[in-house]
Amino acid sequence: MAACELCEEGGGEVLFRNEQLRIVLVDDAQYPGFCRVIWNAHVAEMTDLQPEQRSVLMKTVCQVESALREVMQAEKINLASLGNMVPHLHWHLIPRFSDDAHFPSPVWAAVQRQTADDILAQRRALLPALRTAIVRNANCSA
Amino acid sequence: MAACELCEEGGGEVLFRNEQLRIVLVDDAQYPGFCRVIWNAHVAEMTDLQPEQRSVLMKTVCQVESALREVMQAEKINLASLGNMVPHLHWHLIPRFSDDAHFPSPVWAAVQRQTADDILAQRRALLPALRTAIVRNANCSA
Repeated sequence: MAACELCEEGGGEVLFRNEQLRIVLVDDAQYPGFCRVIWNAHVAEMTDLQPEQRSVLMKTVCQVESALREVMQAEKINLASLGNMVPHLHWHLIPRFSDDAHFPSPVWAAVQRQTADDILAQRRALLPALRTAIVRNANCSA
Repeated sequence: MAACELCEEGGGEVLFRNEQLRIVLVDDAQYPGFCRVIWNAHVAEMTDLQPEQRSVLMKTVCQVESALREVMQAEKINLASLGNMVPHLHWHLIPRFSDDAHFPSPVWAAVQRQTADDILAQRRALLPALRTAIVRNANCSA
């Protein structure tokens, strides 16, 4: 059985972790603010989880989405659970902007443009505030 | 204000509809079984919904995922809420197979191969059973 990279490694800069899941910030030069919410146990699909576990996971996804909207002021938030290459349940959360590398296509499509360096730098400058907002929301269990 | 195609049209073959959402089967030659769950009201993001509405929507997404797994016997199910082009909340559910046009990449990436016609025909032959399973699961409100 091949090793699973999301069982063996954090999968990014871990901002929050509890027994069930973790939130990581992805280091993607074109997409500052790209986050993942990763279920800790090795399951492939949402429906491999019990209903209450699905709710916990999606609540966290929505908490991260809220933080992304608040801090990054994106045009759109993209959510996806794919896992074709790494079949270990994880959600991609990607803040999208009309001037980003692929907009309005998904980030997995062909590159459409190069975002200006100063724009990307402005977005990267928001990451400290994003980290704070994500950790705050994740600790708000209400 | 531009018209929204998911406000004006069903968005596919409507298999189930209630006051809040609908489930449609997408006519995609490469991806028999591709479904969407579309929120009826025009909102853009999951976090534009109230928490209980998010739960209703994701419960339906998971019911469709269960039907896809049961009937299509896919390698993986892909879930995504993107909405960059049509910012009206909708979830893509795509059954993926190792011999499909893009596997293991997302369906929005470059085409990798042509799936054999007889394989696609076998998958299309499962659609009547898929329709039945989706409607059955959606009517199971427990």
